[in-house]
Parts: sequence; C-alpha cells; structure tokens
Amino acid sequence: MPPDLPPAMTPDQPPTVTPAPTPPRRVGTVIRLRPEHERAYRELHAAVWPDVLAQITRSNIRNYTIFLRDGLLFAYFEYTGTDYTADLAAMAADPRTREWWALTDPCQRPVDSAADGEWWAPLEEVFHAD
Amino acid sequence: MPPDLPPAMTPDQPPTVTPAPTPPRRVGTVIRLRPEHERAYRELHAAVWPDVLAQITRSNIRNYTIFLRDGLLFAYFEYTGTDYTADLAAMAADPRTREWWALTDPCQRPVDSAADGEWWAPLEEVFHAD
Repeated sequence: MPPDLPPAMTPDQPPTVTPAPTPPRRVGTVIRLRPEHERAYRELHAAVWPDVLAQITRSNIRNYTIFLRDGLLFAYFEYTGTDYTADLAAMAADPRTREWWALTDPCQRPVDSAADGEWWAPLEEVFHAD
Repeated sequence: MPPDLPPAMTPDQPPTVTPAPTPPRRVGTVIRLRPEHERAYRELHAAVWPDVLAQITRSNIRNYTIFLRDGLLFAYFEYTGTDYTADLAAMAADPRTREWWALTDPCQRPVDSAADGEWWAPLEEVFHAD
C-alpha cells in the first residue's frame, strides 16, 4: 500500500468509506505495524520514493499523513478528485507503487476487525469542523 | 476535552507533540471511547455546541476531524497559530468548553500507554506528503 494507502487500493477492494458530500473527501484508516519491521518501515517513510509521491498526487490525494502509536498506523488524507475508485485503481496499477508496496506490505498486517481481504481498515468519521 | 481536544488541553498538560517546522502543525491523538457511552458521544458530536466550535476556531484549530473504530477515537487537526500552549489554555479556560468536556470526558478513557495525567495521547507522525 502507498506510502501505503488505505483499503480499496485495488479494483477488487472497493472503498468502504462513505463519500463526503463535497470534496475533499476525508479518509482515515488504520493498520498494524509489525514490531520486527518498525525500523524498516520508518526508514522507508523517511525517504519515500519520488515516483510513489508523484502517483499519490496523480491519484488526487492530498495532505496525507501517517501517524504511529502502540503498534498502530493511522493514515489521514484528503481526496480531491471525482472518481475515487478509478484513482485508486490507477495507483494500484502503477509499477513503482507496486514495487513500493512489495516493501511496505510485509511491515504491516490488518487489524483484527478488518474485513476479509481488507488491508488498511477504514475509520468512521464522527465529527468534523473546518 | 474539545469536540474533545488532545492532550495539553490544560496548562498543566503541556503538549507532547513535536512542533512542525512550519504551520500548520498537524496533530494526531487517540483515546478510548467507553462502549456504554458510545451513543451519547455520537449524539453530542452530531450537534456540537456553536460556542464550543467558536472556541476551537479562536484557539487556531482548523480541519478538525474525529474518527472512530474498534472503540478508539482518533483525532486529527491542524494548528495554525503561533502559541499552541496559550491557545490550548484559553480553550481549557472557556466556561462553555468546560461544560462540554464535563459531558464528553465521561465517555472516554485514556489508552493504556498514555502518560500519567494524559487524556488524548499524541500520535507520532511518521510520514507526510502535502
């Protein structure tokens, strides 16, 4: 996944996040970080490949932050495009992004409550103030 | 806490989040939601008091979202001011905000790894792309 993107990063994993009425759509997700790979994960994310960052931008993802605490990674980003499924599919099809995920996926495992086949698990928005 | 703000909401709970080099400072925090109070918490946040929202704005907090999953609340916001400690202290001193927290605090409890006296526990940022 993107600097590791949320669920729905492939066509067979449609977004489970409820669309916001107007852009940007805010997306929050969570996944576990395997303790034995924390160092590798940090090193990768201290210098994310420019090609991976460029694909994120092309896929209309902005203001993307990943946080860590207690072995959990929380991702927050804003989606500014108009076809989320297609933009995520484009990301999943990008060769360099796939190379990146081949390095980051082994660092992670889904939370226990994730749905079958789900990687980053969606959070539910319960409050927002601009 | 704010629509429930992060740690450091009172002068005796100084921010433990590392300041970003330039504004806005992104802040991520986590706390538990007590299952028996989930409904009350959701109802409160579906209609946050205008006075509470106004204080958030006065305290230079923007783009504030709270997410929920698996009994954990994750807050994300951006701080656009220049004196975080003072702005949070002003929030903690606001009478209406204190009334609000008197309703929301009983819905929550700190995560096990929280420091003594810490309410919302800070997340560490490990990646960001604008």
